[in-house]
Amino acid sequence: MSRKQRPAPTASSAAVKRRSPCPVACTLDLIGDKWTLLVIRDLMLGRSRFKDFAASPEKIPTNILTDRLDRLLENGVVQKVPTTEGGKRFGYHLTEKGESLRPILLALRDWGLAWEPDTRVELDREVKS
Amino acid sequence: MSRKQRPAPTASSAAVKRRSPCPVACTLDLIGDKWTLLVIRDLMLGRSRFKDFAASPEKIPTNILTDRLDRLLENGVVQKVPTTEGGKRFGYHLTEKGESLRPILLALRDWGLAWEPDTRVELDREVKS
Repeated sequence: MSRKQRPAPTASSAAVKRRSPCPVACTLDLIGDKWTLLVIRDLMLGRSRFKDFAASPEKIPTNILTDRLDRLLENGVVQKVPTTEGGKRFGYHLTEKGESLRPILLALRDWGLAWEPDTRVELDREVKS
Repeated sequence: MSRKQRPAPTASSAAVKRRSPCPVACTLDLIGDKWTLLVIRDLMLGRSRFKDFAASPEKIPTNILTDRLDRLLENGVVQKVPTTEGGKRFGYHLTEKGESLRPILLALRDWGLAWEPDTRVELDREVKS
């Protein structure tokens, strides 16, 4: 991947405490947990609403989901967008920064398919439009 | 990545509780935390001893390091090897399964370099032989 133009640091991204200047460590400071990348996966599969993320087979606890979405919003990985239903309802979309996580997701998927028995990619069949 | 020959499931790998058959989720069940992939990073940089991992700039707590190394051993990601010092001392090396995590590490590094301000790759200068 070529080096992207860097966004200016924001107060909220500074709120993620860094352990070192290592880019692997800094990325893990933001997304290094069991749940965040599953929300990113769902967004990449076309899901956009809180209830859709909560309905995924891993059953993310809603308090954790709220926390992770807030964190991703604050750090410019997702943005809120109005849903087609209009009114006060909104969903989430990946920003360019969020879309740039795709190679990480693909590498995680490929490793799981190669090394974890009985894994399968079928989540796209569960995407709600 | 092509699909690798799958190893037979072992009792210890079964000990990692799965949330779904999704390969992304299963991979995160094993390595989805703030510390495990930093140990993998260190192994890929040529570090092999407990004290070397503990000396990395992120200062992983030694109880967490012990836990993560045990988990990686049980799941066939690392193996114990005698150190050049001989005797009872040993270090850790990545297995083929562990080496296969490299694309994930590279993707994490590239994303960090692209999107996290003031990150830099210089850890290879700190590798102890």
